[in-house]
Amino acid sequence: MNIEYVKSVIRNVPDFPKPGIQFKDITTALKDPKALSFMIDHLYEYYKDKGITKVAGIESRGFIIGPALAARLGAGFVMIRKPGKLPADTIQKSYALEYGEDTIEMHKDAIGENDVVLVHDDLLATGGTALAALELVQEVGAKSVLVNFLIELAFLDGTARLSSAEDVYAMIKY
Amino acid sequence: MNIEYVKSVIRNVPDFPKPGIQFKDITTALKDPKALSFMIDHLYEYYKDKGITKVAGIESRGFIIGPALAARLGAGFVMIRKPGKLPADTIQKSYALEYGEDTIEMHKDAIGENDVVLVHDDLLATGGTALAALELVQEVGAKSVLVNFLIELAFLDGTARLSSAEDVYAMIKY
Repeated sequence: MNIEYVKSVIRNVPDFPKPGIQFKDITTALKDPKALSFMIDHLYEYYKDKGITKVAGIESRGFIIGPALAARLGAGFVMIRKPGKLPADTIQKSYALEYGEDTIEMHKDAIGENDVVLVHDDLLATGGTALAALELVQEVGAKSVLVNFLIELAFLDGTARLSSAEDVYAMIKY
Repeated sequence: MNIEYVKSVIRNVPDFPKPGIQFKDITTALKDPKALSFMIDHLYEYYKDKGITKVAGIESRGFIIGPALAARLGAGFVMIRKPGKLPADTIQKSYALEYGEDTIEMHKDAIGENDVVLVHDDLLATGGTALAALELVQEVGAKSVLVNFLIELAFLDGTARLSSAEDVYAMIKY
């Protein structure tokens, strides 16, 4: 079991969600028990000595592997959500999209000044959402912040925008 | 570590999302490493001998514990999503809400006739979404279907609507 196997069970869906985009569909990897376990094991090995105390997953696909990884690391899990879904006091961050803008939010009490936080999402494309999440976690006062993705579309160079992170790691690059 | 501890770190938020509702906020349990690990361990113990081959989580809070449990059980994980988000061929199910209706969908190839499927969500209230998910998984031809929640609002009697499931289990009841 290795990354090449996981790559082999990720499905490429052409023209989704719009013409010209080659969508990397992880559902075919998640439903495969061997690939699912390998992803968690692999990320655990990469992060186990980095002192992570919280994994912050970005809604919704960042909720899938994030909590499993957090549990393996002995860390807690924090949700970064679309607006209006978290019930207590939140801190928000808006960011530009190709057309218009979007907003993410997190509970103010989710992260403390001693936390080493791993921001996690399934896919890094241009990096707009990940940068907003990184800044949100930095503003709330985390000790340090790392960023992780299952997949990076490396030709879009999203990593360049995340240079204020302690570390950026993607398991699979296209 | 036990269920009472998990219960003690779930936050009650009055009047969210609307007046009169006592919202059970699991974010305070998820960010607690001991509670997060206990929830996964506890559900693993309950389901380990039930032959589960797939855990199907309902978007988005069913994505949090579902995949971690699937990995522990040696099962795969399947997403049940809001419409338009899954890239390949889907099967859909609409269901009534208090006002209007809602729809969930799943990839047609997510589940096979030999699968023993555990449908998972964080909260059972009136059971409308869970029933739609249960029926969706039954229609796609699973061998048998069980249903799990972290929390059940028992006074709403949602379990009564899920009687076609092999088993319904909620970790915490209010």
